[in-house]
Amino acid sequence: MKLGDLGEDSLLDQIAVNLPPADTRKIFASVGDDCAIVQIADAQNSLVLKTDCVVEGVHFVHETKASHVGWKAMMRPLSDFAAASAVPRFALITVIAPKETEFVWVKELYCGLQKAAERFAVSIVGGDTSSTSGPIAVSVSVIGFVEHNRAVSRRGGKPGDDLFVTGRLGGAVKQKHLKFVPRIVESRWLTQNFSIHAMMDLSDGLGADLPRLARASNVGFNIDVEKLPLTRGATARAAIADGEDYELLFAISPHERIHLTQAWCRKFSKLSLTRIGSLGRKSKNEKQKLPLGYIHFQQPR
Amino acid sequence: MKLGDLGEDSLLDQIAVNLPPADTRKIFASVGDDCAIVQIADAQNSLVLKTDCVVEGVHFVHETKASHVGWKAMMRPLSDFAAASAVPRFALITVIAPKETEFVWVKELYCGLQKAAERFAVSIVGGDTSSTSGPIAVSVSVIGFVEHNRAVSRRGGKPGDDLFVTGRLGGAVKQKHLKFVPRIVESRWLTQNFSIHAMMDLSDGLGADLPRLARASNVGFNIDVEKLPLTRGATARAAIADGEDYELLFAISPHERIHLTQAWCRKFSKLSLTRIGSLGRKSKNEKQKLPLGYIHFQQPR
Repeated sequence: MKLGDLGEDSLLDQIAVNLPPADTRKIFASVGDDCAIVQIADAQNSLVLKTDCVVEGVHFVHETKASHVGWKAMMRPLSDFAAASAVPRFALITVIAPKETEFVWVKELYCGLQKAAERFAVSIVGGDTSSTSGPIAVSVSVIGFVEHNRAVSRRGGKPGDDLFVTGRLGGAVKQKHLKFVPRIVESRWLTQNFSIHAMMDLSDGLGADLPRLARASNVGFNIDVEKLPLTRGATARAAIADGEDYELLFAISPHERIHLTQAWCRKFSKLSLTRIGSLGRKSKNEKQKLPLGYIHFQQPR
Repeated sequence: MKLGDLGEDSLLDQIAVNLPPADTRKIFASVGDDCAIVQIADAQNSLVLKTDCVVEGVHFVHETKASHVGWKAMMRPLSDFAAASAVPRFALITVIAPKETEFVWVKELYCGLQKAAERFAVSIVGGDTSSTSGPIAVSVSVIGFVEHNRAVSRRGGKPGDDLFVTGRLGGAVKQKHLKFVPRIVESRWLTQNFSIHAMMDLSDGLGADLPRLARASNVGFNIDVEKLPLTRGATARAAIADGEDYELLFAISPHERIHLTQAWCRKFSKLSLTRIGSLGRKSKNEKQKLPLGYIHFQQPR
């Protein structure tokens, strides 16, 4: 079987099966979660680790400005830190590029990486470079911390929980995917003030990501498509299937609904927070899908 | 200017110049060192970070067994942990591969990665995958710890220090580069029992790596080429220029010489330890080279 015949979820499942069971008392989240969250001896905080890559022809095109490529390459793993409500601290950069690449392109790439890192006080402390006969690839690993009692994964959602998303969905592939700001500030505020049961960042689109959260939490979901917060000009289909929104999706007890929405409005008046539905009992259908019929979730990324 | 016209050292120099000065009180080693070593608040140990990649056509050929590729991809950053005398704990894996790649190839790759990780009790806690239209690339980031008083970098060498190498040099590109075992055990023993002034692992060959250690320590060096410990069948030229030995090169006070060589013999009777020369005052020539005339150090890697 070829990799192209497997979706990324299946590949990760297969790989995780082949890994030996780690010491689960010490590992809060791992392969298949947004971040790895591991406990270290005698430390107050857990260590949080995430790696992510962007590849020319897959995540950006040859014409994309190098500084935008750098911004996106750094902000993608930082968005996973937002999902875990973790604080990023250090980054390692790997740049794989053909010998013919202009040095000025790599300099601008680093400008974008650095600008993105500075936005969240992340220090770039190391890296590696290699030549290649293929397209440019940039891999970023981010290391940080989260307090034991504030770490969030995809797994704690309960039937009856409200589902909220930050910001607006759809149409991000036009511009936003190169300029987005991960919701780290918002996520840290959420876990400081509320008990968030499950959370993730929407990188592959609500239609692909929500079923992942539901599967990890072993629950079902009900979405009110009419209520999806749409980017101006975007359709509900785009909000579900486009991907690259990098907004937060989270589950929280309905008892917190009024307090949450009021406090959010006061704190983040310029960023919408929308209740898009709720979690429910797991349906008998093996895989629950969002409405609007079949959507090609596993498009090449 | 194209990347191909710059060596990796120059590229890293250029990039480091463009990075803002990090809080140097907290960062013991960073870009250009074997590992990044950073102090974390309220922790007894420093955090150690390293990323490294292998690319098809550069670090391995299409015919290389996938499990060997995985072994090498994991052991390369672990060899940098040996250089820093650090203990590796967690790894993140990024695999960039064409859609046509056989799934069984990736499975075997992970077997090699896992086997190498287990050898040093490292947990693979996360990763990322992407398709590409180019050759396969595997990037491995390793995170671990080192006691504040045992961290070693390339920078502490002093004029008069003895220079030692472990094992034998040259000819590694035939077989050893896919099967080597990083000298972590030996390195931990060294810093437990001796004051090691400067250390690095020999990945690019003594001819490229020793001048890096000397430059970082701001000293010169004198090598006795006759004394280089050669792999059976290898020439002195190969020992200097081949690379991929993954042995340790370290600087230590000559006062320790007798105690070190005797204790080493008792502890690691099967692995040679050879004094190959010494550090000296910095020469006036801008760049000191090893004997044997010009050697093409910056060959594509």
